[in-house]
Amino acid sequence: MIQEIKSEHKKISIVCFSGDFDKIVAAYTIATGAAATNREVTLFFTFWGLNALKKRQGHSWLGKDFLSRMFNFIMGGRKNLPLSRLNFAGMSPGLMSGMMKKNNVASLEELFEAADALGVRIYACEMAMHILGLKREDLEDSVADVVGVATFLNESEDAHIIFI
Amino acid sequence: MIQEIKSEHKKISIVCFSGDFDKIVAAYTIATGAAATNREVTLFFTFWGLNALKKRQGHSWLGKDFLSRMFNFIMGGRKNLPLSRLNFAGMSPGLMSGMMKKNNVASLEELFEAADALGVRIYACEMAMHILGLKREDLEDSVADVVGVATFLNESEDAHIIFI
Amino acid sequence: MIQEIKSEHKKISIVCFSGDFDKIVAAYTIATGAAATNREVTLFFTFWGLNALKKRQGHSWLGKDFLSRMFNFIMGGRKNLPLSRLNFAGMSPGLMSGMMKKNNVASLEELFEAADALGVRIYACEMAMHILGLKREDLEDSVADVVGVATFLNESEDAHIIFI
Repeated sequence: MIQEIKSEHKKISIVCFSGDFDKIVAAYTIATGAAATNREVTLFFTFWGLNALKKRQGHSWLGKDFLSRMFNFIMGGRKNLPLSRLNFAGMSPGLMSGMMKKNNVASLEELFEAADALGVRIYACEMAMHILGLKREDLEDSVADVVGVATFLNESEDAHIIFI
Repeated sequence: MIQEIKSEHKKISIVCFSGDFDKIVAAYTIATGAAATNREVTLFFTFWGLNALKKRQGHSWLGKDFLSRMFNFIMGGRKNLPLSRLNFAGMSPGLMSGMMKKNNVASLEELFEAADALGVRIYACEMAMHILGLKREDLEDSVADVVGVATFLNESEDAHIIFI
Repeated sequence: MIQEIKSEHKKISIVCFSGDFDKIVAAYTIATGAAATNREVTLFFTFWGLNALKKRQGHSWLGKDFLSRMFNFIMGGRKNLPLSRLNFAGMSPGLMSGMMKKNNVASLEELFEAADALGVRIYACEMAMHILGLKREDLEDSVADVVGVATFLNESEDAHIIFI
């Protein structure tokens, strides 16, 4: 039944490449807005984007070798996402979070929960996990599967593909 | 009549998320190139992109509360757009503007005027304006409407969606 | 014959705007993954992306006037691509390359060769070359043609357009 309604609209597939706070907010705003209006939505997290899906928040020594560990330590987790804009003195994810809160816009955590409730499908990129030395169990349970580029493209054949 | 000609081509919808000078130039180059070849084009400005649409140029205290004002002051306006690349010593929007001028490429202002003349539709994102404490009257008259993500997606159903 | 097989899938057109190491890796990963699964793939290099196609590696004085030369000197070539993320102390393209090598993921050079072998079409943006003072002979032989936005859009009419 839901499928039937959903099939009226074109699917939305978003590649979450960037791990920037503001871009993740943008991706989830599009994703939840699309899912709430009966669209089938898939998010494919790769590279820096994977940082937003790590189970262990904060800077931690994940990974099987020294380079991976250093990398993951530097990256921090979802609570440490930076802004994509660096060149405005005084601008920080904290300021943006504050403005979102003050203006009653959903927080990033609320957006993640909404996406989950709305059935947004979350994929993690196989190759990027390989590069970063991450394993399936390092990521949140909300991740539906670890897939390659070809699988993602196949499932997005009749979707809008958006790279963020 | 124009509609008839336009319908031959797929529509182009561009999400202008970034407020970087070079990315705004890229968005308007695609938009005007597409509109000049009889395509229906919509630009949806959100987050940092809204900075390029503000009526009052320069750093000004827009917004209804302290955080919004600080934010808008820091952001400046269209004349203060930074480059997306920070890591090249000496590279500045001024250098790029200079090269565009020297090589007879349309300036950003000329691109904005061309887009207007070619009937490119400009939308501002409702939620982002909410976060940033901006009102409709703070934006240029070229903005056709303030809409939400769902409206944008509905109108872009049969378009290429490009996120810049 | 190949055409026949390829026509089953939707084409992929990628605008390579960014010259960042990680984003070029992402573009080529999608491109080669798509081409390997019988998709027709076109890469359209513009702005900073052109830096990855320059024949002469290293910082060199390309271009017909002082501004262009300064610009091209600052940009370096494919071996000097920076990362899109600047705000992680100690993170460098070298670290990422090291992790790719250690984990047996194709290097950027291998990705370029694979794209070539798989018949990925490479276009350079006419206007950006004009701005940057670059000529056809400054670019690698793998570049199929120098085209404008309209040509790119025409050929991408029935493709997924991805802006990276």
